[in-house]
Amino acid sequence: MPQLGLLPGRAWTVLLGLLRPPPGALCIRAVRSHSQVAEALIASQLKPHQEKSNFTIKTPKGTRDLSPQQMVVREKILDVVVSCFKRHGAKGLDTPAFELKEILTEKYGEDSGLIYDLKDQGGELLSLRYDLTVPFARYLAMNKVKKMKRYHVGKVWRRESPTIVQGRYREFYQCDFDIAGQFDPMIPDAECLKIMCEILSGLHLGDFLIKISWKDVRHEMVVKKGLAPEVADRIGDYVQCHGGISLVEQMFQDPRLSQNKQALEGLGDLKLLFEYLTLFGVAEKVSFDLSLARGLDYYTGVIYEAVLLQTPVHAEEEPLNMGSVAAGGRYDGLVGMFDPRGHKVPCVGLSIGVERIFSIVEQRIKTFGEKIRTTETQVFVATPQKNFLQERLKLIAELWDAGIKAELMYKNNPKLLPQLHYCENMGIPLVVIIGEQELKEGVIKLRSVASREEVAIKRENLVAEIQKRLSES
Amino acid sequence: MPQLGLLPGRAWTVLLGLLRPPPGALCIRAVRSHSQVAEALIASQLKPHQEKSNFTIKTPKGTRDLSPQQMVVREKILDVVVSCFKRHGAKGLDTPAFELKEILTEKYGEDSGLIYDLKDQGGELLSLRYDLTVPFARYLAMNKVKKMKRYHVGKVWRRESPTIVQGRYREFYQCDFDIAGQFDPMIPDAECLKIMCEILSGLHLGDFLIKISWKDVRHEMVVKKGLAPEVADRIGDYVQCHGGISLVEQMFQDPRLSQNKQALEGLGDLKLLFEYLTLFGVAEKVSFDLSLARGLDYYTGVIYEAVLLQTPVHAEEEPLNMGSVAAGGRYDGLVGMFDPRGHKVPCVGLSIGVERIFSIVEQRIKTFGEKIRTTETQVFVATPQKNFLQERLKLIAELWDAGIKAELMYKNNPKLLPQLHYCENMGIPLVVIIGEQELKEGVIKLRSVASREEVAIKRENLVAEIQKRLSES
Repeated sequence: MPQLGLLPGRAWTVLLGLLRPPPGALCIRAVRSHSQVAEALIASQLKPHQEKSNFTIKTPKGTRDLSPQQMVVREKILDVVVSCFKRHGAKGLDTPAFELKEILTEKYGEDSGLIYDLKDQGGELLSLRYDLTVPFARYLAMNKVKKMKRYHVGKVWRRESPTIVQGRYREFYQCDFDIAGQFDPMIPDAECLKIMCEILSGLHLGDFLIKISWKDVRHEMVVKKGLAPEVADRIGDYVQCHGGISLVEQMFQDPRLSQNKQALEGLGDLKLLFEYLTLFGVAEKVSFDLSLARGLDYYTGVIYEAVLLQTPVHAEEEPLNMGSVAAGGRYDGLVGMFDPRGHKVPCVGLSIGVERIFSIVEQRIKTFGEKIRTTETQVFVATPQKNFLQERLKLIAELWDAGIKAELMYKNNPKLLPQLHYCENMGIPLVVIIGEQELKEGVIKLRSVASREEVAIKRENLVAEIQKRLSES
Repeated sequence: MPQLGLLPGRAWTVLLGLLRPPPGALCIRAVRSHSQVAEALIASQLKPHQEKSNFTIKTPKGTRDLSPQQMVVREKILDVVVSCFKRHGAKGLDTPAFELKEILTEKYGEDSGLIYDLKDQGGELLSLRYDLTVPFARYLAMNKVKKMKRYHVGKVWRRESPTIVQGRYREFYQCDFDIAGQFDPMIPDAECLKIMCEILSGLHLGDFLIKISWKDVRHEMVVKKGLAPEVADRIGDYVQCHGGISLVEQMFQDPRLSQNKQALEGLGDLKLLFEYLTLFGVAEKVSFDLSLARGLDYYTGVIYEAVLLQTPVHAEEEPLNMGSVAAGGRYDGLVGMFDPRGHKVPCVGLSIGVERIFSIVEQRIKTFGEKIRTTETQVFVATPQKNFLQERLKLIAELWDAGIKAELMYKNNPKLLPQLHYCENMGIPLVVIIGEQELKEGVIKLRSVASREEVAIKRENLVAEIQKRLSES
């Protein structure tokens, strides 16, 4: 009785009496939305009409729908990001939208108040995930995974005061790439920086720079590696003067550093990192930043952040709010927090600020008045005559079955002009036209919307001709 | 000061004193996850160690992580589904994970108790979405959209008693396609059935059948179209005897129906639907079902459900629980519930039961012991010698920059055998090997993992050669 899917669970309980749910019923929840919608209608009929508009129809504060235009922009951006993650061998992973409340507790310091909790409806206490990093660490600890390179694209939720005009929301996407595992030093770290560069270049957002916090690196040298503070500060002078790529070379030319064994040791990781970044061809994109600081003791390695440097490309564009578009770093202690014995799994990763990037690209599209196609339709099936619905339906089914993206008007007798206008508005490149003349001659007219050129093509060659044209364009 | 992104909001408040947040700070939430993770570590250091394992590390009841293997399966299935939706000209749309509680109220009848509410933390009362149809209707009413063909793939949440072994979860995916708008009768309805057929064929799940509820169609004829009940039952006899494609033809050969004007009128929509389904080449996949029934008065048109017919393909497979894998129908009244004046926007749509399909495909993969690649890596960069990390890094960056998916071991001096084993385990097709000999001769060894064949290729021709091999495979 697989048709159970058409009835809400409780209605069936009544109908079936003592019958046990049949095996076929197992997934009915997933496919029954339309019947519940129908259910809704009876509910509305039972209530007086005036009751239904007691509240404003809106999305919750700090959230928004993504329109078809925005979906296209988002899809293109995510495609660049995810392609890069896959290019670097990352596996996909998905985690639930909510976690046990305790999983998130004590992970976000004072920001914990911004976590969305679910109502206690009996059972476990739950919270919406606040980022993708804590769920990843929970996954690693729970499954005792010691080594994993994964990416995760998903929504997270934070109860912040929303300032929507600036593109900050309570629901937003994160795109994370992380490498978990014990490896030789700085290789995964350098790869994370390389990935940031590839993505930011690939998105054509204009020039960018990745800043590494010097204060944290100094702290690491002094506290963890035992370098004398004055030697660290000597290095700091170089950081301040030169930054980035030339840093290490310059330092090694300074006898006060190059002849100080301790200094050389302290510089080890830094030297490695810049060596690797140079081999990756991105060292000039990375430099130290003195103002950037965490200043806290828990820091376990390099922390970095990518910023856009200027208004992109054209002078006539409105100035954009530049800012942080990616961030990352090392967090070697988090997984251990979930392990009963505190076993650590070192991790390094990065997060692409896609919401920020969405706004930049959207603003740019607006500035340039660029038109975005919201469908991918390749062919429109039109007719200039009445009573051609049957022929149109037969024809469009042929196209669909050949994998061609096609549309027609849901009208028995549409006029030709609105059909052609629709194609122009929607950016559909090709129209196939069938009428009496064509039917008699066994041909179809194929029209290019851009050039308005029309050619007659034998019906049996139509699909091949369309596929040829589409592959050429 | 775009580096704000590295600090949680409150830490900055302290550091910056009275400074107003700079413009660059607007998106820092989206990119700061890694710093919060670091934040977490100090929290853990401040707490006694034993406190941290007071609870079991698990996902919430009725939810699960999707492993990389499951993600690959899911991605392939969603790709078939979404490609089909796009082939039919649908636009994408996304809505927030939660809605104002009132939006969902009175939409799901007795199942309303299964809605997840968010905790009242001040502000609006919110609930997690229960399906994608109500948010779609809310979107249409809110934006006064009268016509739209959209698809939506997203998670929904229902507080059901989970029976996880059977693949039923409290968090699951829905894939919906809907056509909103006033159109000539049965054209969008027929397209929805065509889409179901295309997707189920495209997924190669074995034979399937789409069942239309006869009782609802009868109700429509008698109550809405005023057909005499005995004439409707005469039609019902045909439905019972013949079902599906031959139904309408058979009926028109019965003089008791074909000579009854009222019957002919009552049959109008049914005739149209089967005419269109025949033109679409899917009429034989659709038949009436007598046991299938809603039995409720709110029904506004054809309601249908797709079921798998048998254990697919091979006799040696374990028998699968067949059942409903898609459902859909007409819901002409829902949008009007959100409109202050009750303006209606007729809608018809379908929902693919992807969770059910995930389980079927996963079970099949298990049965066949099929191996699934969880990465898309095309080339592995290996060395047989020590001290070749630099060369490997330079080489892999060239590959990444050429868009080639490549990996290497994060080890200074890996042994060759583990590198080759990794490729075999992960299904990576090509290995490039660089050692002293190759470096001296300006070549790279290119190895096919399957054939173990190795050829030396000039360094400068390597990328082109790899791209050639990949395009051929």
